[in-house]
Amino acid sequence: MDSQLTELLAQTLYQEIPLSQGIGIEVVSYNGECLVLRAPLAPNINHKDTAFGGSLHALTTLAGWGLLFLKLHERQMHGKIVIQESSIRYHRPVNTDFEARCCVPSAAALEKCFKTLARHNKARIQLDAAITLDEVPAVSFQGSYVVHH
Amino acid sequence: MDSQLTELLAQTLYQEIPLSQGIGIEVVSYNGECLVLRAPLAPNINHKDTAFGGSLHALTTLAGWGLLFLKLHERQMHGKIVIQESSIRYHRPVNTDFEARCCVPSAAALEKCFKTLARHNKARIQLDAAITLDEVPAVSFQGSYVVHH
Repeated sequence: MDSQLTELLAQTLYQEIPLSQGIGIEVVSYNGECLVLRAPLAPNINHKDTAFGGSLHALTTLAGWGLLFLKLHERQMHGKIVIQESSIRYHRPVNTDFEARCCVPSAAALEKCFKTLARHNKARIQLDAAITLDEVPAVSFQGSYVVHH
Repeated sequence: MDSQLTELLAQTLYQEIPLSQGIGIEVVSYNGECLVLRAPLAPNINHKDTAFGGSLHALTTLAGWGLLFLKLHERQMHGKIVIQESSIRYHRPVNTDFEARCCVPSAAALEKCFKTLARHNKARIQLDAAITLDEVPAVSFQGSYVVHH
């Protein structure tokens, strides 16, 4: 993984979205296709000693946001990324530290998004993210993001 | 509003969901129909100097959770409340402190939920919550909650 780029992402999250610090977000890995973010259970615990749904949603939202951030920086493109809508399903409780993974949907979808951004200063893209425990899905997330100049 | 009950809700949120402290959640009002929670912008700010989507989602999720908590306590019923799925739409940026309001969908829907809980130890209910700025919708949230013994 490009450690300079992922370090920039980690710094950006911490500085520009301070709740990332409260959640304890770490950038785990990025292989050019998928970004993985992690958070510890302790600061995100709920009344059932499992992870609070709001924390799981925040981590998946930021996995999508972070993937677009990295893809823009790889191309040295400028763009602000905002989440427009999302849906999340909590399949089972998360009783441990957790990781959210978001992968590029397809090279074509990403290409189309960035071409539209270059032409119209604004583009939309749909991203899926997931939290998996022992290879079983625990959280499924779909987000619609807008990138604009 | 029943200040003893809303104080219990505030304490429960702070003690059992510690991220509530990071978000700075306050219980604003409860009139038996609608619960309003508030959060300050500062700890929830993002890279665009508006509220982070994850914070807006957390506050709306907890407005629904809190309304069920109060309704259960009013009837002296016991039940654990968990969010099962939700969707959220961010209509426009939130550039100030913000409030999430969640109201009882209908007396009949609530009655049905609590009867099912009493009979089957588990029930589902759909709740809507919203964040409004200057009387214009900024965030719409729909959550499906499960209450169980």
